[in-house]
Amino acid sequence: MATQANSVPHPTLISVDPFVPAEQQKGIHNRWHPDIPPIATVKPGQTFKIECVDWTGAQIGNNDSSDDVKNVDLTKIHNLSGPIAVEGAEPGDCLVVDILDIKPFDKMPWGYTGIFELENGGGLFGIYATSRHIPGVRFAGVTHPGLIGTAPSAELLATWNKREGELIEAHGVSVPPVAFPPEPIGAYVGQDLDPELVKKIAKEGARTVPGREHGGNCDIKNLSRGSRCYFPVFVQGANLSVGDLHFSQGDGEMSFCGAIEMAGIITFSTSIIKGGIEKFALKQPIFLPSPIDPLYSQKLVFEGLSVDIHGDGKQYNMDATVAYKQAALNAIAYLMKIGYTREQCYLLLSAAPVESHVGAVVDSPNACVTLGIPTGIFDHDILPNVDGLVKKDFGHYVRDVYNLPV
Amino acid sequence: MATQANSVPHPTLISVDPFVPAEQQKGIHNRWHPDIPPIATVKPGQTFKIECVDWTGAQIGNNDSSDDVKNVDLTKIHNLSGPIAVEGAEPGDCLVVDILDIKPFDKMPWGYTGIFELENGGGLFGIYATSRHIPGVRFAGVTHPGLIGTAPSAELLATWNKREGELIEAHGVSVPPVAFPPEPIGAYVGQDLDPELVKKIAKEGARTVPGREHGGNCDIKNLSRGSRCYFPVFVQGANLSVGDLHFSQGDGEMSFCGAIEMAGIITFSTSIIKGGIEKFALKQPIFLPSPIDPLYSQKLVFEGLSVDIHGDGKQYNMDATVAYKQAALNAIAYLMKIGYTREQCYLLLSAAPVESHVGAVVDSPNACVTLGIPTGIFDHDILPNVDGLVKKDFGHYVRDVYNLPV
Amino acid sequence: MATQANSVPHPTLISVDPFVPAEQQKGIHNRWHPDIPPIATVKPGQTFKIECVDWTGAQIGNNDSSDDVKNVDLTKIHNLSGPIAVEGAEPGDCLVVDILDIKPFDKMPWGYTGIFELENGGGLFGIYATSRHIPGVRFAGVTHPGLIGTAPSAELLATWNKREGELIEAHGVSVPPVAFPPEPIGAYVGQDLDPELVKKIAKEGARTVPGREHGGNCDIKNLSRGSRCYFPVFVQGANLSVGDLHFSQGDGEMSFCGAIEMAGIITFSTSIIKGGIEKFALKQPIFLPSPIDPLYSQKLVFEGLSVDIHGDGKQYNMDATVAYKQAALNAIAYLMKIGYTREQCYLLLSAAPVESHVGAVVDSPNACVTLGIPTGIFDHDILPNVDGLVKKDFGHYVRDVYNLPV
Amino acid sequence: MATQANSVPHPTLISVDPFVPAEQQKGIHNRWHPDIPPIATVKPGQTFKIECVDWTGAQIGNNDSSDDVKNVDLTKIHNLSGPIAVEGAEPGDCLVVDILDIKPFDKMPWGYTGIFELENGGGLFGIYATSRHIPGVRFAGVTHPGLIGTAPSAELLATWNKREGELIEAHGVSVPPVAFPPEPIGAYVGQDLDPELVKKIAKEGARTVPGREHGGNCDIKNLSRGSRCYFPVFVQGANLSVGDLHFSQGDGEMSFCGAIEMAGIITFSTSIIKGGIEKFALKQPIFLPSPIDPLYSQKLVFEGLSVDIHGDGKQYNMDATVAYKQAALNAIAYLMKIGYTREQCYLLLSAAPVESHVGAVVDSPNACVTLGIPTGIFDHDILPNVDGLVKKDFGHYVRDVYNLPV
Repeated sequence: MATQANSVPHPTLISVDPFVPAEQQKGIHNRWHPDIPPIATVKPGQTFKIECVDWTGAQIGNNDSSDDVKNVDLTKIHNLSGPIAVEGAEPGDCLVVDILDIKPFDKMPWGYTGIFELENGGGLFGIYATSRHIPGVRFAGVTHPGLIGTAPSAELLATWNKREGELIEAHGVSVPPVAFPPEPIGAYVGQDLDPELVKKIAKEGARTVPGREHGGNCDIKNLSRGSRCYFPVFVQGANLSVGDLHFSQGDGEMSFCGAIEMAGIITFSTSIIKGGIEKFALKQPIFLPSPIDPLYSQKLVFEGLSVDIHGDGKQYNMDATVAYKQAALNAIAYLMKIGYTREQCYLLLSAAPVESHVGAVVDSPNACVTLGIPTGIFDHDILPNVDGLVKKDFGHYVRDVYNLPV
Repeated sequence: MATQANSVPHPTLISVDPFVPAEQQKGIHNRWHPDIPPIATVKPGQTFKIECVDWTGAQIGNNDSSDDVKNVDLTKIHNLSGPIAVEGAEPGDCLVVDILDIKPFDKMPWGYTGIFELENGGGLFGIYATSRHIPGVRFAGVTHPGLIGTAPSAELLATWNKREGELIEAHGVSVPPVAFPPEPIGAYVGQDLDPELVKKIAKEGARTVPGREHGGNCDIKNLSRGSRCYFPVFVQGANLSVGDLHFSQGDGEMSFCGAIEMAGIITFSTSIIKGGIEKFALKQPIFLPSPIDPLYSQKLVFEGLSVDIHGDGKQYNMDATVAYKQAALNAIAYLMKIGYTREQCYLLLSAAPVESHVGAVVDSPNACVTLGIPTGIFDHDILPNVDGLVKKDFGHYVRDVYNLPV
Repeated sequence: MATQANSVPHPTLISVDPFVPAEQQKGIHNRWHPDIPPIATVKPGQTFKIECVDWTGAQIGNNDSSDDVKNVDLTKIHNLSGPIAVEGAEPGDCLVVDILDIKPFDKMPWGYTGIFELENGGGLFGIYATSRHIPGVRFAGVTHPGLIGTAPSAELLATWNKREGELIEAHGVSVPPVAFPPEPIGAYVGQDLDPELVKKIAKEGARTVPGREHGGNCDIKNLSRGSRCYFPVFVQGANLSVGDLHFSQGDGEMSFCGAIEMAGIITFSTSIIKGGIEKFALKQPIFLPSPIDPLYSQKLVFEGLSVDIHGDGKQYNMDATVAYKQAALNAIAYLMKIGYTREQCYLLLSAAPVESHVGAVVDSPNACVTLGIPTGIFDHDILPNVDGLVKKDFGHYVRDVYNLPV
Repeated sequence: MATQANSVPHPTLISVDPFVPAEQQKGIHNRWHPDIPPIATVKPGQTFKIECVDWTGAQIGNNDSSDDVKNVDLTKIHNLSGPIAVEGAEPGDCLVVDILDIKPFDKMPWGYTGIFELENGGGLFGIYATSRHIPGVRFAGVTHPGLIGTAPSAELLATWNKREGELIEAHGVSVPPVAFPPEPIGAYVGQDLDPELVKKIAKEGARTVPGREHGGNCDIKNLSRGSRCYFPVFVQGANLSVGDLHFSQGDGEMSFCGAIEMAGIITFSTSIIKGGIEKFALKQPIFLPSPIDPLYSQKLVFEGLSVDIHGDGKQYNMDATVAYKQAALNAIAYLMKIGYTREQCYLLLSAAPVESHVGAVVDSPNACVTLGIPTGIFDHDILPNVDGLVKKDFGHYVRDVYNLPV
């Protein structure tokens, strides 16, 4: 007979409360530093769970006001759960991480996205996301951690701080800033450590904003539930940290906080490949995507070039970032013909499983990037047709408009 | 009974000989200009074929010397077949183009790619490509036109020439050039026109190198056999031209002539949507990819950031082009561990159905781009494993190494 | 700020304990009968959860003995949770059911399959299944309810009992039985009802073994998490019941209890289409599969015909059931060359996401059915090659054999 | 330079004229017999082409009369091209066949399907099929040979004739016949052989109607362009024959001549695995499907059980053939609500890339089979919705109804 005795749940190594500010909880940190000690240690092969607050650490509420988003304290982000040491991992090794599951808390079945001044709470119903702010759309989530990485060594940390410091110096003061230097204000380590050590970590610790050689905030939507990742190890134990869970994100994460952000629970299993950095020429993580990413075979694809045709018409020199933005602006112009507002379009393209490909970066002076929108996420036909596009009014987030059932 | 009488083949509107220099053939041109008259006219709904020489116009041979590639005359490219006018198309309309088939000539079952100093003839066996220069690899082609577009209006042409001229001016002399201004030398129109008109076209005509608002040399691999494209119309008749057929290409078309270039036959059907530019906010082509692109579900994915970790370690500011290159260099470093030479890696990643996604362009200062290699194109296991990677010798293109049969 | 107040979890309408025998719990029943009253009622559009015991109702344990399976009491199955009435549903309507999530209990992260005399407990690690009894294999689950349906009307129930009774009569006593008539022994309704009514339900209630016009035990693996189903409604409220949750199943569910059986929690949302039976000619459920079923693009495909080439060579007349079995036996013969035992093969093909297609049923006298095994579920290469297949020893379920790490 | 000299086309080993009756052409045969000598011999590794007439050998015309179909002479089918011997192949080996390309003749861009009394010529436009008889539908072809196999040994042929003879005997005279015994009338070998040998072949040769251990008429749609097949070898040289080319077919090939039948050209490459029958337990062919089969991710799925609910309501005993038919009849009833006639539905489901899965064959007494229709092949929305289905008039094959362009 099935019994509790032979049904051992996978252990939860870090528990958090998604309704409590991050800086009041243990096992959370928001800077990268080699001296943050592991909060827990696992054996290779062990399956375990880690709970995460959302990236802001409960700063955003499920309401229709955008003040939360406007007033978020960015010195305090991203809130990561960890570090987790893996027994036997040493610098030069490869840490294999299987992402076995990612799910929201049962008690918090919602997430949000924003264009930093417009909040957008939406419901997570099992595998699907819907939003009262974007009627007519429903899509399957590609849940993934926006941010996951091993701890840097002291040398690697020094390299980061140096090169980013030089960039900041070269650009002077700019808005938004080109990069974020170490910032003691808001730094948090979530463990009872020697105050001098805490001060050192706060002073030197790398900000979590960009992705770097150890992984970090790469915001790759395909690093999803079911994928296997190979991380370089820089410190004893590898010291894996994770956070910034996304229910879904489009390629490019168009708006600043573009994904559907959520708190939740992630399940891992790890193993070690000795000397893996040398074996695989592993300067950065590599990974095998999940076999269960959503499959929307039909896409409507927009092109973008490195010419600012939506602005002043300026010709850029083979700049794929400009090309990505132009493709996105072409898509937005199209979706506005259907009736979505510009704000809805930004949020939709940021959060839905949109695919953006680098087409070509050899045809001087124009890089070409495409952005494909899966047509199957709409409950109405959005394809071009002889009669033009039907413009609906999605401007109000009245649930009824969605015309639910089928 | 089946009879010839009721079996009407689709007409071939432009016939070329892939073994004859392009400038000796009719129906080929190599500049964009509104004054190039249509060489043929079709009715909406009609299915028709267009034959194309390879982009160089027969300058490259099927041999093991790289001199052809080294000495190619770039003033003469790309050789396009057309223009084809569509009855009833007017400026402001949308020209719908169905790409129904693309195939090599039976008499020329090979194509080539190059890193401009290394030639690489390879065989096209039905749907698959193999190369005597890259043993151990076989993949299904995603055939597509590298270059397809409608003719520009005089105003649009003037805009192009102005903005690209300004870029050239801003950069001064550089190698390679940042852009290509109009160049009378090598210009060709392939019709018997008033010599003054030919001179005008040669003097003003836009070079075919970059993609632009009308489509052009976008090198988007997913504009493949079976896709439906929506082009803005700028001149009476739309004047569609096509060329630079690819048997296969990876996202990014890494090396300059990265795709598998071929001569061949393309089958089209077209229709017109009146006022489509306004209806669809159509500043550039949009398209629906084919339902029959190859499906290699397992991919090994490499990340790249806007830091030149393969070079001098310089920090770039949110530059997706740098990130693409770093992802590619990470992939190359990995493939070299398996035994491929750097040159083989370049060619392989340029020509195989590699997928490159824009991960995120919001995490300052690092843009993140991924590059995924389908593992199913190799006849051996390339995945990371505990024992490291087995390094084989693929250095010589001896057929036997491929160990054909299965 | 995120607060508990504005984070309303989806309600759980039926709660069960997977470690307690089903017949001691409320909200469970194991017969189909129009007179079983709803245990709960929902409004259209509402998202809700239902907990289910495994199909046997906790009769099987997580051990290495096969006695549990051998001694299972089949008069007590399948244990269904329900019925759930939907407000406003009337006979003739179509009940739309969105299957939003299916997951095992955290406290019971395992399932089992069996060939009725060999038990096979296996671990469910997030999205993947592995088994200590079948080393070398790991696959993503296609979680689905093996059994889901609306309640029959009295007329429909009478039709079932009549036609199945006639079949039983025509075949006489056979082992295994051709069909299962109503059986009062073991019948259970899980509600405090008038004893006379309970007796009536037990006497007339249809057994849950076969699928029928209302859905029921169809064991269709693609009715998975994320799919939308359209059920005919036969009684006031529709009275939806569900159970027999599967973590994964291959097409055909080869062995009797072929899927990976589990207890768990299923999340639904429903709506009603008035008069849907007439609108859609709905004699049986239709459905839209999920966009997130696992994608294993490479498959090794075996053929089967309606000739018993694995037995006495008998020629059957266009019998697709025989053809399915022959395809399976061909696959088993192949897998045994790799080293799996016959029992492992049965379990593997029953539980893994194997695809079986009806090839053709027109080429007299041979129906043709195929069975495709996804090669990506093995951690080693199973494809045919010139040197033949490497036979490993998977005969003992020692964890080490799996050679874990990567 | 590209030259004809270094561009060697793949050789065509058998040339036919699709407008000439098969029995007037060389290299065609319509019976299976070990004594039919090879018409050509290839070396392993060689790429070559084979031309095929349509299965009837030009008996069907491109017209709107159904007389051709009604009067087809079935003693003369299927017309196969071959046999092709492969050097070194011996009984017991495995013949590996790569199907590299399949295409219609340029001069015959049409095919047909029929429900044997209704002819249905349709156009093949590149990769897509459309029909003037089924407006509103367009789908990508999954081209494949309906019939491909190696020659049987004398022993195997004797086995076939014995077991099928016994079936015929057991059933007596039936319409349609349960199987087809050898039939000298209409037999054809397409080579100048000793008249006594021709007589022997005609007398003993197995009819081509069913698939058997050597492959043959399996009508598996996934044996498509790009797939790799492993055939058992029964005679010296293997003696491969092929014919009955299909532009497209649905699973099950519902109506007798259900696929889109065409004449055309197939490109092969072969190799041999010595002793492959023993190595792979190869009682029947196995194969790897192509990576480029069309991808229509959204499907509307119908269920069928082994109860004749569309007829007299009879309960069958776990009969998957009945279940397949019921699923098809459910689909037809649905499509008729949209406006298609019963005949159009038959043809559509037979010819389109419809997927039929064996759901379960263990839930006595009902086998369950599903049939999924790709929604993307329709130019209008066919999904269920609250307002019911819009019924259009597709009854006349007026081109205009299709409302071409988009």
